[in-house]
Amino acid sequence: MRLDGAIGRVRLVGAGPGAADLLTVRAVRAIEGAQALLYDALIADEVLALAPVACLKVQTGKRAGQASMAQSTINRLMLRLARRGLDVVRLKGGDPSIFGRVGEEREFLRANGVEVEVVPGVTAACAAAAQFGFPLTHRGEARRVLISTATLAGGTLADAGWAGAADPQTTLALYMGRDQVRGIADQLIRHGRPAATPAVAVENAGRPDAHGIASTLGELATALDAARPTGPVVLLIGDVAARADIAAVADAVVPCRRAQA
Amino acid sequence: MRLDGAIGRVRLVGAGPGAADLLTVRAVRAIEGAQALLYDALIADEVLALAPVACLKVQTGKRAGQASMAQSTINRLMLRLARRGLDVVRLKGGDPSIFGRVGEEREFLRANGVEVEVVPGVTAACAAAAQFGFPLTHRGEARRVLISTATLAGGTLADAGWAGAADPQTTLALYMGRDQVRGIADQLIRHGRPAATPAVAVENAGRPDAHGIASTLGELATALDAARPTGPVVLLIGDVAARADIAAVADAVVPCRRAQA
Repeated sequence: MRLDGAIGRVRLVGAGPGAADLLTVRAVRAIEGAQALLYDALIADEVLALAPVACLKVQTGKRAGQASMAQSTINRLMLRLARRGLDVVRLKGGDPSIFGRVGEEREFLRANGVEVEVVPGVTAACAAAAQFGFPLTHRGEARRVLISTATLAGGTLADAGWAGAADPQTTLALYMGRDQVRGIADQLIRHGRPAATPAVAVENAGRPDAHGIASTLGELATALDAARPTGPVVLLIGDVAARADIAAVADAVVPCRRAQA
Repeated sequence: MRLDGAIGRVRLVGAGPGAADLLTVRAVRAIEGAQALLYDALIADEVLALAPVACLKVQTGKRAGQASMAQSTINRLMLRLARRGLDVVRLKGGDPSIFGRVGEEREFLRANGVEVEVVPGVTAACAAAAQFGFPLTHRGEARRVLISTATLAGGTLADAGWAGAADPQTTLALYMGRDQVRGIADQLIRHGRPAATPAVAVENAGRPDAHGIASTLGELATALDAARPTGPVVLLIGDVAARADIAAVADAVVPCRRAQA
């Protein structure tokens, strides 16, 4: 708390994909210095453990059957804590600028006179690609990456912006699409993406318990039905997905914990 | 070097946007433990300084008038160093899976029996958005982020995949487009993106010397001509760019260096 009575500040911090060593150094320092920590449901315990013992910790997302907090409640809570002079850290999975509501939160706080800093993080698509050893862009194969949510409204994709999905040189990274994969895949095929396009679904991307499922766009829903993931899933669709090394995960996660040779 | 005579390994590591505190903890540990470090031209000195004094450091990119190494030369060098039993770190700006040639390098090394790990990083679009306080997605305004290079061939965009660019709900993040902004903007407008679309060009995104230029798609080239950036530039095009706080940079960079209150 600031002894000079000044208002505190809020940092909107990307926690990356889950593993504590995929936080940025700046994020680690922010969490270690936090006096109040508001965190989403998917933040790992090993990340939360970086906060000081005396730090006030508030979970804002759904977990263990509890409902998630309304955005307006989160906003007011951050403001109240900052006005008490606290250094507030709002911790979000991945990168806060991508599907992290950083616009709403930052603008509310600044309109109320609170200083806001945003700390970027590693987004899930990059974590999934690194962990399973495939690139998101590849010369002659994928020139672009389209990061999107994939929600359906009335059985069709919720808006008309899928013209780019048919481009074979675009790797699609679809977040939050776990429960609607069949409808999403059908729509993408209808928009011109071949059913044979390689696809990988990664559950818990970037975490030690990550699970990859290699398939094709046309068969992805059936493959996911069989796997029954319970964690967050990112879908990677495009020719680059054929380069995924599903057996590689144990290798990819373990080396950082090995002693140096 | 491994005393057991085993072959070394190569880690393809994302250095993030430049500032050392935007490295992931895993990347810092990889650099600190490296016995050989191959790095791109845009890696900051403060990042290179994390490597041990005894580490062999090789610059692979253009700098100070020297030509950059051919990809095949880099590949052979990594292989030779790994075969000497060294822990090799190949350091790339941003995230290695996005325009980082991780596919070529990983597949060459694995085909030659070398273990490869990829460490993800913060990509430039996320760093630019965080530093200038605007989101890449925003409810009702931007549902998607398209990360692309923007190179022209014969005056037109180098391929036909720009159908998605016209979607007003897609934020475009264009890398490596500094020298061809006028042609790129003309092409995007021709593909249906309004000339009045907000646009921000960020030079040296994520670094303390970052510089943001707020404009519109139609006027971005003229604005960039006046600013004459010399560092790498990422172009962010879409309604969210109107939320950029160009004056915020000093604030955004300084807080991590302040003492805790």
